[in-house]
Amino acid sequence: MPTYTAPVKDMQFILHEVLKASEQDVPGYDDLDRDFTAAILEEAGKISTDVFAPLNAIGDQQGVRLENGVVHTPDGFKAAFDQFREGGWAGLDCDPEYGGQGLPHVLSTATGEIFSAANMAFMMYPGLTHGAYSAIHAHGSDTQKQTFLPKMVSCEWTGTMNLTEPHCGTDLGLMRSKAEPQDDGSYKITGQKIFISAGDHDMSDNVIHLVLAKIPGGPEGIKGVSLFIVPKFIVKDDGSLGDRNALSVGKIEEKQGIHGNATCVMDYDGATGYLLGEEHKGMRAMFTMMNEARLGVGMQGLSQAVVAYENAVTYAKDRLQGRAVTGAKNPDGPADPLIVHPDIRRSLMDQKSFVEGARAFGLWSASLIDRAHRNDDAVADGLVSLMTPVVKGFLTDQGYDMTVLAQQIYGGHGYIEEWGMSQFTRDARITMIYEGANGVQALDLVGRKLAAGGGKPEMAFFEEIKSFIKEHGEDEDLKSGFLDPLKNASKQLQEAAMFFMQNGVKNPNEALAGSYDFMHLFGHVCLGYMWARMAVAAKKALADGAGDTAFYETKLTTGRYYMARRLPACAMHVARITSGADPVMALDEANF
Amino acid sequence: MPTYTAPVKDMQFILHEVLKASEQDVPGYDDLDRDFTAAILEEAGKISTDVFAPLNAIGDQQGVRLENGVVHTPDGFKAAFDQFREGGWAGLDCDPEYGGQGLPHVLSTATGEIFSAANMAFMMYPGLTHGAYSAIHAHGSDTQKQTFLPKMVSCEWTGTMNLTEPHCGTDLGLMRSKAEPQDDGSYKITGQKIFISAGDHDMSDNVIHLVLAKIPGGPEGIKGVSLFIVPKFIVKDDGSLGDRNALSVGKIEEKQGIHGNATCVMDYDGATGYLLGEEHKGMRAMFTMMNEARLGVGMQGLSQAVVAYENAVTYAKDRLQGRAVTGAKNPDGPADPLIVHPDIRRSLMDQKSFVEGARAFGLWSASLIDRAHRNDDAVADGLVSLMTPVVKGFLTDQGYDMTVLAQQIYGGHGYIEEWGMSQFTRDARITMIYEGANGVQALDLVGRKLAAGGGKPEMAFFEEIKSFIKEHGEDEDLKSGFLDPLKNASKQLQEAAMFFMQNGVKNPNEALAGSYDFMHLFGHVCLGYMWARMAVAAKKALADGAGDTAFYETKLTTGRYYMARRLPACAMHVARITSGADPVMALDEANF
Repeated sequence: MPTYTAPVKDMQFILHEVLKASEQDVPGYDDLDRDFTAAILEEAGKISTDVFAPLNAIGDQQGVRLENGVVHTPDGFKAAFDQFREGGWAGLDCDPEYGGQGLPHVLSTATGEIFSAANMAFMMYPGLTHGAYSAIHAHGSDTQKQTFLPKMVSCEWTGTMNLTEPHCGTDLGLMRSKAEPQDDGSYKITGQKIFISAGDHDMSDNVIHLVLAKIPGGPEGIKGVSLFIVPKFIVKDDGSLGDRNALSVGKIEEKQGIHGNATCVMDYDGATGYLLGEEHKGMRAMFTMMNEARLGVGMQGLSQAVVAYENAVTYAKDRLQGRAVTGAKNPDGPADPLIVHPDIRRSLMDQKSFVEGARAFGLWSASLIDRAHRNDDAVADGLVSLMTPVVKGFLTDQGYDMTVLAQQIYGGHGYIEEWGMSQFTRDARITMIYEGANGVQALDLVGRKLAAGGGKPEMAFFEEIKSFIKEHGEDEDLKSGFLDPLKNASKQLQEAAMFFMQNGVKNPNEALAGSYDFMHLFGHVCLGYMWARMAVAAKKALADGAGDTAFYETKLTTGRYYMARRLPACAMHVARITSGADPVMALDEANF
Repeated sequence: MPTYTAPVKDMQFILHEVLKASEQDVPGYDDLDRDFTAAILEEAGKISTDVFAPLNAIGDQQGVRLENGVVHTPDGFKAAFDQFREGGWAGLDCDPEYGGQGLPHVLSTATGEIFSAANMAFMMYPGLTHGAYSAIHAHGSDTQKQTFLPKMVSCEWTGTMNLTEPHCGTDLGLMRSKAEPQDDGSYKITGQKIFISAGDHDMSDNVIHLVLAKIPGGPEGIKGVSLFIVPKFIVKDDGSLGDRNALSVGKIEEKQGIHGNATCVMDYDGATGYLLGEEHKGMRAMFTMMNEARLGVGMQGLSQAVVAYENAVTYAKDRLQGRAVTGAKNPDGPADPLIVHPDIRRSLMDQKSFVEGARAFGLWSASLIDRAHRNDDAVADGLVSLMTPVVKGFLTDQGYDMTVLAQQIYGGHGYIEEWGMSQFTRDARITMIYEGANGVQALDLVGRKLAAGGGKPEMAFFEEIKSFIKEHGEDEDLKSGFLDPLKNASKQLQEAAMFFMQNGVKNPNEALAGSYDFMHLFGHVCLGYMWARMAVAAKKALADGAGDTAFYETKLTTGRYYMARRLPACAMHVARITSGADPVMALDEANF
């Protein structure tokens, strides 16, 4: 059975030596000293290793079940959720006015990786609650906030997001769910929603559904969509729970993975709902927390790669099979461990260099969100908006691929459910799909974000890389191992962006046909940049005699691998992009 | 629920216009005229669409169950297997002396793709039988052949291959199973074998296990391994079935996929076995049919990509979502079909260009096996030996990736088991693992096959491509769209091979650290070569006025996509390879 240990040391390195969190001029960051973040991360790691991770396989095997309209979670989930609540984890970065701890997003992003690595399906219950909390916090009336937020911050009540309907996923303008205004200012919600994660369960007293629906007579399509708060139990004026609302779980979906989470078909049959924000501005309300939510999904993808990698390393060191081609490494044993074989190392280095680079990328992006929110920093906001589809698309695609690599190291045992490696691939798979399928992320990146703000955000990004290279260019080892490859990759990214600008205006297909490759090209440049920054930090620590030489040397070695063996993907992506739209679009539909 | 239609037209194109089968000077190929192969392929397609494909999801959902020592297959499998037998499909390419039809391997490879696409788990029962048949046919005594082969050719009895033990997979030298010689010339087999596909079931009268075991006192390690025939029921001298042998199913594994196939733990408890071939030469006997078996697994990987692609196309045409960026394509409907979106086309073209190129590669390789066997052609044998790890490793890796792409097109529905797309990914996954995990294929390619025969096979391959390019170089359109990219990719492959030669002798890790990339680089060059050959054939047909212009134009368009959008992967692989062993091997084991 797989195990999990939180990468606290690596997170501390990123927070304090790469991002230098406590030195940043961001409100709340001065609290983030080494000891404080270490305490939080270690505590999150402890409950994850001891409580959440052991329930991961149980959740996968048992799944959830719907009996007489009630959803039952797997054995142990309820008690674990109580521990999660009691530990105060739910409100870590929530508004203190409603009982949260008000800590920066960069820290909750780190704990989020830890919790998801231990048990992604479990962590989706509080995760969805947090999404609903954010929407109500941003758009709710004072009464709504007072009514719902304290209970959601504590996770006594959980939340959901209801967007998809059977005939509409990405294209929400096709929505059919209706919201009819009532005399008392409330609405009657009617319609069917599908793929509702954490839609119902037995771990909280109430479920607060956020539901997109159309008010009759409003504008056509996406412009006529409004957002509603629809509680499972009506909340009375005194805050106590009243009648059951007219909503029910129609079905639980049988999925490839995340079996421990209840993915529900939700039927609304004239349920009482309360308008959240303005009429017909539902999409705007929904998109408010999009950067955070998509970053969160990116971290989920990464998290599965992390736990899969940890277990692959253990197996590669334990399993004796074959002899090293350069001579026996374990001559007294019947065979050498798998890890002596070059191709096993190639796989492990792919995983390790991704996982650590992606972690830095995720935490850096979270720090930009903090800067955007806490400092009202428009530049940071522009940059993180640009990065969001990259974090989501690249980290989940690559994270999934890494779980497959990790599974492969187990050979036949990787395919047997008992060993637990299959679950990581199956759970990771959903991250490429939900919260906007990755093709939609690529479209968002190339079709919207690249041109946003007159292209200033990506210019700022390129400038940041350029000045970083200039600043550190005198270190020859850094230059050849990190800065030159980064410079080259960054040029390839600019070349691709230039191709889009020159050709995409006349024919948008010239840009969109290359959007997926562009998202991956962008991701590689970001991870290359992170590795260069980590290399600078590691070299500084070594020069300063910071101790733990092996840790910093390992950083440099792993980073060199990324630059030498992963960045060459950029050449492939730019070649695909600049081959243009014709190869992609030439075939008539009938001939597929 | 997914459907399946056999790609008969495409197979006919490859067999008759690309490989020109019936014109080849190979015994038996003169029978392969257009009408004959069309009749066989259409018949195989019909039973696959009507009988095998509808059982695919049922097999996945029900799985097999072990009750009182007996394995029960899913509903409908037994009747379908009867139809398979009655159709004479089992013995298509088997020796007529034992009831087979003696048809060339190239044809059974095509029908194999069809059957596996329809229901891979089901098709593994006859597939394993065929493997056991081949081993007995090549190494059995006359009595053994007369006793076992006729019933195996008809699939009245099925077969298995027993190699793996809990502590040894790839490294079979660690084997513990024992074979103790008895006075009557038989052996008593004792030990536990795992991952035994089709290990037991209720669809045949007898199961003929081929079991690797060590005769006490023999050489250490892999050189002391012998192969035994161990029937479930002892076969009496008159051919009738006698006592139950001392073997049993210890357990059925819970796997990620191929649920319809019984993957058994087999316990041998002094079971009666008969030596197949010579003492201690078990591995040689096992490897006789390795090229065929690995080609077969490569075709399985392809097959799942084929059926996934077919269904992805259907969904992309049916599902209405969003509007084409260049203007509505379905203005009267609520939205345009998915297929109008450039990124959906990018995905479909990736799939289509892989599937058709890989099919040509598989059938070409099968034709080389025929030439090697039927003409005793050492050059063909050398070439197909070289290609075998590429077919197995590249087609299964890429085949799997394509099933994931196809699943992605379904968005959230792809993740729901009811839609059937998840199963294709889960079934395809095993093909990367069994019959030698793909890392082992890469090792075989670079560590063994490249140097085999003094490197003559790859020189012959490069020469073949070179003269092909020379022969067709005067067609400008062909040159720019196909031959130039092929030439470039072929050069990159040679550059990589040269790097191995120059550096691998001093330090084998320099070669093995790049082995996986080399396998993929090689695969891309092979598919590029196939696409160039298909382009020549399509152009000829168009020039000859062969009719069905759309089919041939589609070939050219799809091929151009492969050359423009897939071959650029070669640049990435060669860069990774030539970065050498150091990035891969530098990290101390303790620091992973």
